[in-house]
Amino acid sequence: MLELRLVQGSLLKKVLESVKDLVNDANFDCSATGFSLQAMDSSHVALVALLLRSEGFEHYRCDRNISMGMNLGNMAKMLKCAGNDDIITIKADDGSDTVTFMFESPTQDKIADFEMKLMDIDSEHLGIPEAEYHAIVRMPSAEFCRICKDLSSIGDTVVISVTKEGVKFSTRGDIGTANIVCRQNTTVDKPEEATVIEMNEPVSLTFALRYLNSFTKASPLSNTVTISLSSELPVVVEYKIAEMGYVRFYLAPKIEEDEEETKP
Amino acid sequence: MLELRLVQGSLLKKVLESVKDLVNDANFDCSATGFSLQAMDSSHVALVALLLRSEGFEHYRCDRNISMGMNLGNMAKMLKCAGNDDIITIKADDGSDTVTFMFESPTQDKIADFEMKLMDIDSEHLGIPEAEYHAIVRMPSAEFCRICKDLSSIGDTVVISVTKEGVKFSTRGDIGTANIVCRQNTTVDKPEEATVIEMNEPVSLTFALRYLNSFTKASPLSNTVTISLSSELPVVVEYKIAEMGYVRFYLAPKIEEDEEETKP
Amino acid sequence: MLELRLVQGSLLKKVLESVKDLVNDANFDCSATGFSLQAMDSSHVALVALLLRSEGFEHYRCDRNISMGMNLGNMAKMLKCAGNDDIITIKADDGSDTVTFMFESPTQDKIADFEMKLMDIDSEHLGIPEAEYHAIVRMPSAEFCRICKDLSSIGDTVVISVTKEGVKFSTRGDIGTANIVCRQNTTVDKPEEATVIEMNEPVSLTFALRYLNSFTKASPLSNTVTISLSSELPVVVEYKIAEMGYVRFYLAPKIEEDEEETKP
Repeated sequence: MLELRLVQGSLLKKVLESVKDLVNDANFDCSATGFSLQAMDSSHVALVALLLRSEGFEHYRCDRNISMGMNLGNMAKMLKCAGNDDIITIKADDGSDTVTFMFESPTQDKIADFEMKLMDIDSEHLGIPEAEYHAIVRMPSAEFCRICKDLSSIGDTVVISVTKEGVKFSTRGDIGTANIVCRQNTTVDKPEEATVIEMNEPVSLTFALRYLNSFTKASPLSNTVTISLSSELPVVVEYKIAEMGYVRFYLAPKIEEDEEETKP
Repeated sequence: MLELRLVQGSLLKKVLESVKDLVNDANFDCSATGFSLQAMDSSHVALVALLLRSEGFEHYRCDRNISMGMNLGNMAKMLKCAGNDDIITIKADDGSDTVTFMFESPTQDKIADFEMKLMDIDSEHLGIPEAEYHAIVRMPSAEFCRICKDLSSIGDTVVISVTKEGVKFSTRGDIGTANIVCRQNTTVDKPEEATVIEMNEPVSLTFALRYLNSFTKASPLSNTVTISLSSELPVVVEYKIAEMGYVRFYLAPKIEEDEEETKP
Repeated sequence: MLELRLVQGSLLKKVLESVKDLVNDANFDCSATGFSLQAMDSSHVALVALLLRSEGFEHYRCDRNISMGMNLGNMAKMLKCAGNDDIITIKADDGSDTVTFMFESPTQDKIADFEMKLMDIDSEHLGIPEAEYHAIVRMPSAEFCRICKDLSSIGDTVVISVTKEGVKFSTRGDIGTANIVCRQNTTVDKPEEATVIEMNEPVSLTFALRYLNSFTKASPLSNTVTISLSSELPVVVEYKIAEMGYVRFYLAPKIEEDEEETKP
């Protein structure tokens, strides 16, 4: 028996909107500690890891560990039918091949339940070791989203270079080149508007903008995004989910023969 | 000579937007009592009935009964050119094969007249008898619109079931099933937010969502919608037009062999 | 060496949006007096003339006259990456085959530079003599935009007729005819809402709505538009750019054999 009641149901709606275009089918894993997902994107280039901790739910009952295979597109379709102020409850009976999403309006005058068939999905759960990163950039999520979108109008890849002074995003394409520098800035009125750089050593890595643009669909989940970079590791783009967990996206850097050309 | 002056011209704009996708060509009937239309949709499944009573017009002159055949798509194109605050006057000379829509801006600084050719349209005017319905549901029009739209993302038909406690909308499709229950609720702050059920006997009927979704284009005309259901009769979905009349949509229930399956 | 710093960078963004659909490639001419452009549209029917006077820039350095060939679509793509509050600087080194657009956020925390390749473009600079016009209409730019758009849903051409009392826009098409009259009105609360007519003699001219609709993309640049008409001259549709200059569009009237029909 599984019953997870999330008062701020809009969070789950936003989570699905942020991953549904990247991942088609995935297993949601439910245990005493929380509701989580780990999945590769359909082209096996990027990895998504989601965690919603049990403490963040108003009511959290999970009698035994369970893994539920879902089509994220269909799940997103159903969650779109929840109002933004609705309470969402995820329910599954032991051994059932369906999951039920229940939406309660704040006034309790409208109750909807959507039942979805579960799928059998093969998945390898990758262990993701905690790692030391050369540089960690925290910046407004809307700013990162805008930069990835803007650079996509010029080129296909972005070089992200971090120094103590700031982070530089560069691209080049047929019509020209673009460089955007965001300076470290911690003296802002609102902490979520700060750009904060923790750096052990300078790093400069190239990524496909297509994936970064997909990751930024998680921007509604959090005002800030954290980008962790190391030359030997995939970049981690993390959006915290207030008091509940996170959505993290992992993407390996591109090893480009002509990468030097786009360096400053 | 016909001259109908409607100060709240936006009403006529909204009326056309609500019926133009359902009905291509139709006769508008004008008499001393009002301006009305009755027409089948192009696939002859649904019926629209519109009434704008003469009292609702600032000026209403209709010397003799007249029936004017119009292409609703073209009429809607012309009415879109009226500002939302414009006064609209419908004018036709006796025996003329055109109708003129005049739009006056509130300041009278801008006067537009759009002249449209009339058409000869065969039409049988159906007598629609007043009937007793098993159940009548009044609910916020935006809520009904949202429910029809949401269920369309899951299935093609909806079962509407009314009991004393509430009205249930159910559908099923390839990806699963959905049930939405709206409870009777008369203790709301604003009367237009109430869900009120008048029931003589329980009723459960199946309808094509495609048509209901089309009907909900009339939602801007009224905060509430009234749904009248009887097992032997087409459903009536009515949007009142403040102090002037109504738009009513009629749709026959579907007789589905497997209808039992979707029942509770 | 060229360096033009425009504090209100959004002006340049709006200028590009207003001309990029009309003109593909064009030379921007830079001299001590200002930054200007003159170009025919791709079908050689309409002419655009833009002037941004040097006084309107915060910093304006132009060591020698220079003509820079740009693809306006690509330039618009780059300028779209500037924030609406950004300061934009246009930079070019002597003899360089590129131009750089630098965008500075108001807080100076984000600096972007976009470098675009220049093109060799043949262009004849037409001398446009100052002329006397039969009638000059000044009206709200949003009103003119709405009228051109509305009439396009009925016909392809518009007859603009000016008398002392007002200006009339007429069209006809398959579904009917339309006439919109805007009366002279100088007693409005806000001067930008006035419709003012200066007339030496009545004039009635026919234009392709397709081009006028394209011109109205400049509406965000100015609350008012000035339309100058003479029977022997192209119409001039002018949008002033506050304290800096203008965008002017020129279009020759259509000589229609059946023009009489659409006259009043």
